[in-house]
Amino acid sequence: MRQIKLFLTDVDGCLTDGGMYYAADGNELKRFCVYDGMGMVMLRKAGIQCGILTSETTDIVLNRARNLKLDHLFMGAGRQFETLPICRFSPATAEPVQLQQLTKKEACEMLCREMNISLDEVCYIGDDINDLDILQAVGLPACPKNAMKEVKAVKNILQLSHSGGEGAVRELCEYILSQTN
Amino acid sequence: MRQIKLFLTDVDGCLTDGGMYYAADGNELKRFCVYDGMGMVMLRKAGIQCGILTSETTDIVLNRARNLKLDHLFMGAGRQFETLPICRFSPATAEPVQLQQLTKKEACEMLCREMNISLDEVCYIGDDINDLDILQAVGLPACPKNAMKEVKAVKNILQLSHSGGEGAVRELCEYILSQTN
Amino acid sequence: MRQIKLFLTDVDGCLTDGGMYYAADGNELKRFCVYDGMGMVMLRKAGIQCGILTSETTDIVLNRARNLKLDHLFMGAGRQFETLPICRFSPATAEPVQLQQLTKKEACEMLCREMNISLDEVCYIGDDINDLDILQAVGLPACPKNAMKEVKAVKNILQLSHSGGEGAVRELCEYILSQTN
Amino acid sequence: MRQIKLFLTDVDGCLTDGGMYYAADGNELKRFCVYDGMGMVMLRKAGIQCGILTSETTDIVLNRARNLKLDHLFMGAGRQFETLPICRFSPATAEPVQLQQLTKKEACEMLCREMNISLDEVCYIGDDINDLDILQAVGLPACPKNAMKEVKAVKNILQLSHSGGEGAVRELCEYILSQTN
Repeated sequence: MRQIKLFLTDVDGCLTDGGMYYAADGNELKRFCVYDGMGMVMLRKAGIQCGILTSETTDIVLNRARNLKLDHLFMGAGRQFETLPICRFSPATAEPVQLQQLTKKEACEMLCREMNISLDEVCYIGDDINDLDILQAVGLPACPKNAMKEVKAVKNILQLSHSGGEGAVRELCEYILSQTN
Repeated sequence: MRQIKLFLTDVDGCLTDGGMYYAADGNELKRFCVYDGMGMVMLRKAGIQCGILTSETTDIVLNRARNLKLDHLFMGAGRQFETLPICRFSPATAEPVQLQQLTKKEACEMLCREMNISLDEVCYIGDDINDLDILQAVGLPACPKNAMKEVKAVKNILQLSHSGGEGAVRELCEYILSQTN
Repeated sequence: MRQIKLFLTDVDGCLTDGGMYYAADGNELKRFCVYDGMGMVMLRKAGIQCGILTSETTDIVLNRARNLKLDHLFMGAGRQFETLPICRFSPATAEPVQLQQLTKKEACEMLCREMNISLDEVCYIGDDINDLDILQAVGLPACPKNAMKEVKAVKNILQLSHSGGEGAVRELCEYILSQTN
Repeated sequence: MRQIKLFLTDVDGCLTDGGMYYAADGNELKRFCVYDGMGMVMLRKAGIQCGILTSETTDIVLNRARNLKLDHLFMGAGRQFETLPICRFSPATAEPVQLQQLTKKEACEMLCREMNISLDEVCYIGDDINDLDILQAVGLPACPKNAMKEVKAVKNILQLSHSGGEGAVRELCEYILSQTN
């Protein structure tokens, strides 16, 4: 395995258990896991950049990414059956930059070019069919215990023992660190 | 089995785990599941209309139905022991149309007449005693793992292996697609 | 067993799983279960009065009691180590009437006198040590699966197979109805 | 074991299940457990002081600490990789006092000096790597079932059978009381 230099994660079902809380007043919530947050803090301390790459566009994810001081945030990527542009948020200003419609894999490739790294040096964790393209492209594909069967069937995918929102990302972060010298 | 042309689902206990979150300030929340949403997106892409048919009337469900761009939304149907009119929401405008008091089965029959399909071409998933009339009428009745015993006893009902709010509707959507040619 | 004429329930751990959601803005939430609500609707339809008797005082419980059109609501009863007065809410107006400090048992006895029934005709479900006095007094004491060991040790207590917030109250309502002629 | 005179607990993963609820409107929630609250009420009634010692700084924790009338609240302690000052809140006024950056162990030592007790007389429960310093110093270190492996490896640590947010702290409070004469 090449040394991982970039860690990217999906949101629903990976950083959460797939639950989407809707309120009568129009507000929405997601439940994240403190252990995952600490895992990404550990990765960043070890010099590995961390980011979120999700098909949803919601301030919930923006707030979580800011709180964890993540390096990258792409929202709207890989949104199937629609033509919304993907947004990229500057970590410093949280201002979105609108890009053309990209798949998750294309967004990841764009980031690799900027960082001058190869897809082999990327770890991505996803759980559903709209994650298949990027999972098949990166050096370390991974999925939580609750992933869809199509995802678990990806070649060489690392199946974690924890579910999304219950420490799957923390488990993956510790795995990456254990492989890092 | 006839080809399914309309998929209808209950909310509490089917699209959710039955939890109803009450806030001190009067707000309410429900927890939906991202996998179920993707399942209905897949059904609609395959040309099968999707809708919600629930006895509650709450903006939570309206928000979720809009977000998923569902084709149909009936709220208030089959509300036992009360005489509130059922409301039907236009997907385009989200404006409610008040109908007379209907059972869930009667609301489904009205929709079948409009779509010029038979009850045999409908799949409905429900979990409690106020779902019995419609479950006994449709071509493909289904229930989540957590359904009440009276529901599980419905003739020919498809008992899913997932619970409500944990992917039961996704499992059912995949089943319908697997039977579709 | 005497015919049950009054059903009373605790809130935290019985109508909920014991979770208390605190928000940064000072709001609070509790998670109720749709099946329990339907259970109390069934009891009331069978002529059995239903109420909530809790040591907490919060608008969350008031909102839930109103939504279910319960007959009785006492908040603040049996609050240990404090001297707050108990409040009784009129179902019609939701206006509180302040009473002197009462234990849960004393509140129940007051209600029995008003209804001209005996404690033998009451079913109460509770889960923690501040429920012991009333559980030892009523005709049908019950507890959810998650009850504290002191509660499970109450003489003749009915231990339900469901946990609080997961259908324990529904299970109890169905038991009461099965014993009713 | 020395008689415990001070009980301190971490928040995320100990008083909660590690879930962090983020809302689109910027609000946040945590889910506490009613049984843990009753446990600390019992400890305080037995003359044992109770407090919270956490690396996060949020009004959620302040609200919970006030509601339970805890004796001590330190927020920001042991926040790794950052230099925010730790805040100590006066239980009476809820006004914060800013201290210099302290580890969790240092905050505990400060409190012991004020109370004129030794670290041997302290019980602390924690679940993650930023709890290691204090867990290795106190007389009764404990962890919930869901603690990280590094925490479970602490010498003489009491591993509870309940998870955080599901009664781990209540179990620990009952253990302390059972050892108290």
